[in-house]
Amino acid sequence: MAEQKKMVDDITAMDEDFAKWYTDVVKKAELADYTSVKGCMVIRPYGYAIWENIQKTLDGMFKATGHENVCMPMFIPESLLNKEKDHVEGFAPEVAWVTHGGEEKLEERLCVRPTSETLFCDHYKQIIHSYRDLPKLYNQWVSVVRWEKTTRPFLRTREFLWQEGHTIHATAEEAQQETIQMLNVYADFCENTLAIPVIKGIKTEKERFAGAVETYTIEALMHDGKALQSGTSHFFGDGFARAFDIQYMDKNNTLQYPFQTSWGVTTRLIGAIIMTHGDDNGLVLPPKIAPIQVVVVPIAQHKEGVLEKAQELTDRLAKFCRVKADVTENSAGWKFAEYEMKGVPLRLEIGPKDIENNQCVIVRRDNREKIFVSLDELETRIPELLEAVHNGLYEKALERRKEMTYVAHNLDELKDIADNKPGFIKAMWCGSRECEDRLKDEATVTSRCIPFEQENLGDVCVCCGKPATKMLYWGKAY
Amino acid sequence: MAEQKKMVDDITAMDEDFAKWYTDVVKKAELADYTSVKGCMVIRPYGYAIWENIQKTLDGMFKATGHENVCMPMFIPESLLNKEKDHVEGFAPEVAWVTHGGEEKLEERLCVRPTSETLFCDHYKQIIHSYRDLPKLYNQWVSVVRWEKTTRPFLRTREFLWQEGHTIHATAEEAQQETIQMLNVYADFCENTLAIPVIKGIKTEKERFAGAVETYTIEALMHDGKALQSGTSHFFGDGFARAFDIQYMDKNNTLQYPFQTSWGVTTRLIGAIIMTHGDDNGLVLPPKIAPIQVVVVPIAQHKEGVLEKAQELTDRLAKFCRVKADVTENSAGWKFAEYEMKGVPLRLEIGPKDIENNQCVIVRRDNREKIFVSLDELETRIPELLEAVHNGLYEKALERRKEMTYVAHNLDELKDIADNKPGFIKAMWCGSRECEDRLKDEATVTSRCIPFEQENLGDVCVCCGKPATKMLYWGKAY
Repeated sequence: MAEQKKMVDDITAMDEDFAKWYTDVVKKAELADYTSVKGCMVIRPYGYAIWENIQKTLDGMFKATGHENVCMPMFIPESLLNKEKDHVEGFAPEVAWVTHGGEEKLEERLCVRPTSETLFCDHYKQIIHSYRDLPKLYNQWVSVVRWEKTTRPFLRTREFLWQEGHTIHATAEEAQQETIQMLNVYADFCENTLAIPVIKGIKTEKERFAGAVETYTIEALMHDGKALQSGTSHFFGDGFARAFDIQYMDKNNTLQYPFQTSWGVTTRLIGAIIMTHGDDNGLVLPPKIAPIQVVVVPIAQHKEGVLEKAQELTDRLAKFCRVKADVTENSAGWKFAEYEMKGVPLRLEIGPKDIENNQCVIVRRDNREKIFVSLDELETRIPELLEAVHNGLYEKALERRKEMTYVAHNLDELKDIADNKPGFIKAMWCGSRECEDRLKDEATVTSRCIPFEQENLGDVCVCCGKPATKMLYWGKAY
Repeated sequence: MAEQKKMVDDITAMDEDFAKWYTDVVKKAELADYTSVKGCMVIRPYGYAIWENIQKTLDGMFKATGHENVCMPMFIPESLLNKEKDHVEGFAPEVAWVTHGGEEKLEERLCVRPTSETLFCDHYKQIIHSYRDLPKLYNQWVSVVRWEKTTRPFLRTREFLWQEGHTIHATAEEAQQETIQMLNVYADFCENTLAIPVIKGIKTEKERFAGAVETYTIEALMHDGKALQSGTSHFFGDGFARAFDIQYMDKNNTLQYPFQTSWGVTTRLIGAIIMTHGDDNGLVLPPKIAPIQVVVVPIAQHKEGVLEKAQELTDRLAKFCRVKADVTENSAGWKFAEYEMKGVPLRLEIGPKDIENNQCVIVRRDNREKIFVSLDELETRIPELLEAVHNGLYEKALERRKEMTYVAHNLDELKDIADNKPGFIKAMWCGSRECEDRLKDEATVTSRCIPFEQENLGDVCVCCGKPATKMLYWGKAY
């Protein structure tokens, strides 16, 4: 009970102050810390290990779909950023400018990349001449900088880590297919690796990425009912190619403009993990990206043979999962709290009585279920339990999203839900920018996507009452 | 012969113009390309795949020695950079300064990290309080910026990729051991993974890293007789801890300053690979980091069964090595030249007659040896041949270094060698800065290192004739 109390004391309860709960978890689970640079964080070893696991899986998925990694410079000359009108308008207000190299003032100032479309275009222009040079399917793992006013670890930082895919194709159809393919890769990754259910859809024109013809998004619902944009994929048409004068000779010896895409996910996904699965005892990690999948805690470790047995089991488990034994002098209760805070999916307890009975106790982090497992069956039971935790987390998150998704048929209904019920609001929309703006102003809903899976909730726009053909998801966004 | 000619035409011969040969190889093997940002390069897929293989192996070696990855911000506030006197003097003249975020002028300008000691110190101060918090063994894979005047792809670029290890320890002894341990990791990696022989040693005081008490280095000799510093490891004593006021409570409840190290290697290693192993036909890659270890080239591929057999062999090889089949319409000769240019260690040729005889032809990139191998023995012979290429490359480089290492007993001898014989010069040194400067001025050599393996070449300094106790390697450096 004392231990239980300690845990609860350590972090603010979710219901009390969700924002404070979030930053408490980030600090206490040692995922990240603040630095002297406002809006920039240190990603600490435990947080970075999660990012490495995310990278490893996603990178494998990118390579399996034919993509190659490259690395572009971090600087963009101002004149290059200015080449595509919409793009520069979207990004120039929030970039960091380098004006001096050493003692000297630069002839042209450089921005620290907020995204790299312009750099890729500059490179494409050098290497693409013929249809034989297409497509190029590129990706890079780098950090980018956007000079945000309000920041929060992982969710919105001035510098963040991400991957940015950039591809260029001979035809619009091929580029469109790529855009959708990568959105599906992201959705697959969120659901099957991070256990986070997402809604796939299209952004409204207003919310499109600067320079894009169409922006696709995956949206997830956090524990507090707010929406988190978790990944985006953009189709650019041939707009960038025209702005940068990239042309290729087709099979008929005619010059053509190629078509482009870009797509990205960021360290924000770690924020999504925290706010989707976490609870009042701390982090709860999906097993596939957990740096430690099983922690072995010896019970009454001063008794003969306990530490040896704990080590023996750890060595066995290391062959098929990421395992750590905690054999420090700290009490078992302290260890329980510590690894719950860190969100380790399974805890394996082994004490003198367990050894006598040739068994151990396994406790699931997600639902605290205690399971007695014969020591002869660890090789089959632990992978099954890790899978069960993954499925349990996914089902719980999906169930919560269902419970927190509402339907609004008119403006009053929508406002009432927006004021009183955190979550997604499904509603019909006429497609006008006017109604979109009005809902944002009057109901303070900021997130929206037109889901691929449409439902017919009526014939008229929730806002203006005119005919509507599209169903939209509304929400309050991080 | 026509093909042979093509290859030679494509790139400048080494003997004719080594610098031009180098940039030709970088461009033609598609390792990197120039960008609109002076001194910054695009690392293209083939070049980046080499870097990924370097990262993977080194990262494994770092983790095996107990290090954890983290990620610090890319910006350092000016006041933070200024905290350690020697450090800021060394780096301030060559940093890029961010002065504006969006439209607003920053209150304090930020430099783009040239290295991250100050950021790590700032973080250590927050997380280190007790001896129980020590040591911290950190590393990060990031890019850094140094505003160099003259630049060359991989060898010296304004932005470059690297890893920087940063560790902090309770005692000086432990930190010193760490410094040497990591130098040994680098030397091991260069020799056993990159097939590049290196000399391990200590830098002179003049050449020390800004803020270091001792800087250790590994030095390699390039094809043209110039030296390349390939990795460094620094012992800081408690200087940074004092400057940043980092203290910990020891077991006796006394406040103590901890001791620090840092160590790094960069994308410069790719330059070292090119200039150590390359030849007039292009790149020659050490098998352990080659993105493609074996290229399968079908001969007379229009003949029945050839393409099928090539594919079958490729599938077999994919189980134990990185293999690619080139089944394009290009001629076999074109393919030979292409993969020689790209430095692929082994070429496997398979044609109708080979199929009849149940064999294939394997050609080594390093020495062009042709070997007939029974198709039944590929699983054993190919790993053996990859190992043979690695050993062949290492031996050749070591042999060249021996041939290009000279001994000087007096100033005239040293000047004569420096003027006429590219390579390393071993000579005795009294230890004075005066002699070091004089040799730099009069013989245009820079001190490379005081090697761990000392030899006694005489009793007097090569420069001043006074008593000498240390042997130094001199050379002209990249």
